[in-house]
Amino acid sequence: MPASYAYLGPEGTFTEVALRTLPEAATRELIPYVSVQSALDAVRAGEAEAAFVPIENSVEGGITTTLDELVAGEPLMIYREVLLSITFALLVRPGTKLTDIKTVSAHPAAQPQVRNWLRANLPEALWESAASNADAARLVQEGRYDAAFAGEFAAARYGLEALETGIHDAENAQTRFVLVGRPARPAAPTGADKTSVVLWQRDDHPGALRDLLGEFASRGINLMLLQSRPTGAGIGNYCFCIDAEGHIADRRMAEALTGLRRICLQVRYLGSYPRADIAPGEAGPTPPGTSDEEFMAAADWVARCQDGRF
Amino acid sequence: MPASYAYLGPEGTFTEVALRTLPEAATRELIPYVSVQSALDAVRAGEAEAAFVPIENSVEGGITTTLDELVAGEPLMIYREVLLSITFALLVRPGTKLTDIKTVSAHPAAQPQVRNWLRANLPEALWESAASNADAARLVQEGRYDAAFAGEFAAARYGLEALETGIHDAENAQTRFVLVGRPARPAAPTGADKTSVVLWQRDDHPGALRDLLGEFASRGINLMLLQSRPTGAGIGNYCFCIDAEGHIADRRMAEALTGLRRICLQVRYLGSYPRADIAPGEAGPTPPGTSDEEFMAAADWVARCQDGRF
Amino acid sequence: MPASYAYLGPEGTFTEVALRTLPEAATRELIPYVSVQSALDAVRAGEAEAAFVPIENSVEGGITTTLDELVAGEPLMIYREVLLSITFALLVRPGTKLTDIKTVSAHPAAQPQVRNWLRANLPEALWESAASNADAARLVQEGRYDAAFAGEFAAARYGLEALETGIHDAENAQTRFVLVGRPARPAAPTGADKTSVVLWQRDDHPGALRDLLGEFASRGINLMLLQSRPTGAGIGNYCFCIDAEGHIADRRMAEALTGLRRICLQVRYLGSYPRADIAPGEAGPTPPGTSDEEFMAAADWVARCQDGRF
Amino acid sequence: MPASYAYLGPEGTFTEVALRTLPEAATRELIPYVSVQSALDAVRAGEAEAAFVPIENSVEGGITTTLDELVAGEPLMIYREVLLSITFALLVRPGTKLTDIKTVSAHPAAQPQVRNWLRANLPEALWESAASNADAARLVQEGRYDAAFAGEFAAARYGLEALETGIHDAENAQTRFVLVGRPARPAAPTGADKTSVVLWQRDDHPGALRDLLGEFASRGINLMLLQSRPTGAGIGNYCFCIDAEGHIADRRMAEALTGLRRICLQVRYLGSYPRADIAPGEAGPTPPGTSDEEFMAAADWVARCQDGRF
Repeated sequence: MPASYAYLGPEGTFTEVALRTLPEAATRELIPYVSVQSALDAVRAGEAEAAFVPIENSVEGGITTTLDELVAGEPLMIYREVLLSITFALLVRPGTKLTDIKTVSAHPAAQPQVRNWLRANLPEALWESAASNADAARLVQEGRYDAAFAGEFAAARYGLEALETGIHDAENAQTRFVLVGRPARPAAPTGADKTSVVLWQRDDHPGALRDLLGEFASRGINLMLLQSRPTGAGIGNYCFCIDAEGHIADRRMAEALTGLRRICLQVRYLGSYPRADIAPGEAGPTPPGTSDEEFMAAADWVARCQDGRF
Repeated sequence: MPASYAYLGPEGTFTEVALRTLPEAATRELIPYVSVQSALDAVRAGEAEAAFVPIENSVEGGITTTLDELVAGEPLMIYREVLLSITFALLVRPGTKLTDIKTVSAHPAAQPQVRNWLRANLPEALWESAASNADAARLVQEGRYDAAFAGEFAAARYGLEALETGIHDAENAQTRFVLVGRPARPAAPTGADKTSVVLWQRDDHPGALRDLLGEFASRGINLMLLQSRPTGAGIGNYCFCIDAEGHIADRRMAEALTGLRRICLQVRYLGSYPRADIAPGEAGPTPPGTSDEEFMAAADWVARCQDGRF
Repeated sequence: MPASYAYLGPEGTFTEVALRTLPEAATRELIPYVSVQSALDAVRAGEAEAAFVPIENSVEGGITTTLDELVAGEPLMIYREVLLSITFALLVRPGTKLTDIKTVSAHPAAQPQVRNWLRANLPEALWESAASNADAARLVQEGRYDAAFAGEFAAARYGLEALETGIHDAENAQTRFVLVGRPARPAAPTGADKTSVVLWQRDDHPGALRDLLGEFASRGINLMLLQSRPTGAGIGNYCFCIDAEGHIADRRMAEALTGLRRICLQVRYLGSYPRADIAPGEAGPTPPGTSDEEFMAAADWVARCQDGRF
Repeated sequence: MPASYAYLGPEGTFTEVALRTLPEAATRELIPYVSVQSALDAVRAGEAEAAFVPIENSVEGGITTTLDELVAGEPLMIYREVLLSITFALLVRPGTKLTDIKTVSAHPAAQPQVRNWLRANLPEALWESAASNADAARLVQEGRYDAAFAGEFAAARYGLEALETGIHDAENAQTRFVLVGRPARPAAPTGADKTSVVLWQRDDHPGALRDLLGEFASRGINLMLLQSRPTGAGIGNYCFCIDAEGHIADRRMAEALTGLRRICLQVRYLGSYPRADIAPGEAGPTPPGTSDEEFMAAADWVARCQDGRF
């Protein structure tokens, strides 16, 4: 297995910063790829041990290119997630003043996050889209644009300075990244885990989706993401990418997945992994009747009934 | 183990007739008891191998004395059920004519079944309640009353003749009887089985009972009886006696019972046994996604996911 | 309208005592009837303004003779309920001592309530059933039995004295009585009401009963009684007598009943009336989203949407 | 009201073709806008009577820029939808042969639809993204690129010819467009309608989303689209854009929306309009118990019960 992680490049982006928060990243070669698809293909082809890609953010919701790659093709599994707060710095060549700025650049995804700041501070500046925020910084370095919105960490790499930092229109703007590898045994439960699956309905009738969600609800499992994605079978045909609280090693989750597998046309398991929003062990108790102990006691009781010993 | 069956006596009642339809009754001593309670106590005390008692009829519904005995006290289990169509004969001393009849007798439970017939044919006759229909026949034999409503089979025993047979106000009048023993391994599934349980709610809130029933419904299990019984904790406090289609050896039933055990304050298993209303193997297929095969395939898939092999 | 109330007699029973707790009873002639059926028939025939009968007790649960009368025949409605705590006195002829008592009598329904007391205090006494507790007292007066279990209030009527009072095996033993009349506008809501209905399922399939109960649950309505009763269409065919919190004038209850009427084969409305277990206005707030105000605001919003004004 | 429709331009795209299938488009001035946002802003500002924009396609699912515009800001309503099958033509300057093509251009959204065709037929051609397919055609006309993927209808406008038509990787590729205006009374039901709403949950707990969907399911309403969108309150906070079968003038839909309004934090009504996938009147009967007639009969029954007349 090659000791390398593919990630959505180029270097100097939020993705790389997020990846470096993972302790295991320190011991791997980190290789930027031009797209989510190419990074995941590298994993599927065995060229990389894992790929690190964005999957959800607080502005766009589920990132569809990543979800679509996970939904289709050779199965992959999520092993880790990272949450990164996204705030921008305005990077300029040293000496540039705010009043000098006529053109600004960044990846289009940055635009909703800096729009208000621009309107208030640089209402006349012309927006030029770049392939990535890092690329925008490079173009500022080259003198093509006057300023770039990027992570503050990108300043040093491109010989720029941050004229302003902490720019963000939406409070709590965060992006969630995942580390994706080929299927293997999930990491052990930590007491604060999340399970990702994709569900395809067997048929569509009133209550069909409600009944799918009932498999989680009746076992006290909270949902953290529900993102529909087209199945490719024509408009109105969707599968559902779901993140749910808990680990497949938890009895309630295992039973919920068993139920879904029975009633769905298809279920794709995308992994169980530690939640990044809370610390291990901090998930709190499950609702009454849904702990492993209660599941095992109940199953034991049924087994005794089956034997007539009770 | 004593080779005897206790049954609700006296001799010559529908209960005895129903009991004798069981092949195993031919090889046991059949002992009449004066009450359901005493028959079941005989089983609990080890004096009888099993007890045969009525549990439901089409006029009264669940027979509360039997249900209450099963709900409380030392656990018992149901091993067999028998359905008997109930029609009455009008038994008289030989030679009695309809116009001679001034008094009629039977157990009070017979009254709703013969009321219309009486109104049409013997509007002037005086009703006298007896402790059982067989007892009424005996009292006719002794000359105390002119006629008794009882099973036609009782005529010979008491030297009476049936002036009329097939009397029943309600079409499809049936009584269901059960053979009850101490807990042991249930009989093997026959492909047309029923499972009986008693459920006590953990607490009472909007949706509490719906959620209990959801444990059956979400696994495609049909209910055949739901009878509430007071818990003894004061008015408005009920437990629920439930008969559901299927056998505890069926995966869907085992999982439903596991779920109920988790979310209920208490569950009492009353047995899984062949249905008397249809023949073995005639229960038909379970709803999509609820067969043993589908349960096992789904559980196997979850196990493979837990191992990362899929 | 005749200014009389029929009640389940004879005089001197708990039923009469319960009836006399109703202020309106003071201005009516109170007429005992020999059976629940005859009392209700008197109402149906216009001979009595209303009938007062037991409908539920903490030992027997729903009283089936009453329920069956309400389920079938000419529609009737419940207007009031009364809860009465049931404790027995041991009534004897003046001068009788405990050691003198060889025979005791009461209505059979009293037996479960005094069994433990008898075992502890009169283990040798012979039990003789009577048609009512009042009748047992009369038979003691006549010298036929030595003691009767009855309400303490019956002592004076029959020239007896209470050798012991407050006898009850089960704590919180209560009987619920209802005042039943011909259909008319229900009494106004009091802020602590109950609605009674009978439901017949359209068909029987997995989840059918759960879905009926869902009409209450999804509107935050708690159930207080669910009693199945045979429909007469053969064994296993049941309708459901349900008491639910709230008044038909409450929006959530009206909508729940609308839903039930749509999905049931049949619904019989049995009335909305003040709860006897708590005081007017004490029912507490309904769950979030289910108050009249919220229903009306939501309906108003939908009406505005229908008009395109929002 | 200005007699103009704004649409997502430029001219010569699939959006314009779809718009022109609407009879009412023939009598309006059709004005292209550079973005969905600017087209909808024109409506909000009163500069256009309505805007015509894509909202869903079989490759991308819900089009998030359009949904996000409808979810937030001044309320708008959907009045019509159009479904358009999407197949591409390869447009070239007259005389160009397949072997001459070194560069191809189109909007990035076209790429997933032509990828396989390119791989099979022009594996060496260089892909150059354009702002729209129409813009790609213009750039071919100008000689900048050799070929453009666009609708066949764009050939004439830019003096090009279609070297190949009917190019599409996915069968059944369709885009759904909507005509959006300021709130007004929805068009009358046609017997095949759809209702669009946005739901915000009051809180997040196990079963919360299932219960929202239950408001549709319990009234027999099928869902056609469920697309989660971030609320802006941080990662993991979503609202749900839902398309459901039926019209707000239908009783079952009106009641479902009433229920949602009660239990949701917020509901935004986006309109009821004729379905484009089936003809008026072809929606078929609603499930048992959910027709307008059944709703009205049930509500009438409840009203009679409230009055005591039944």
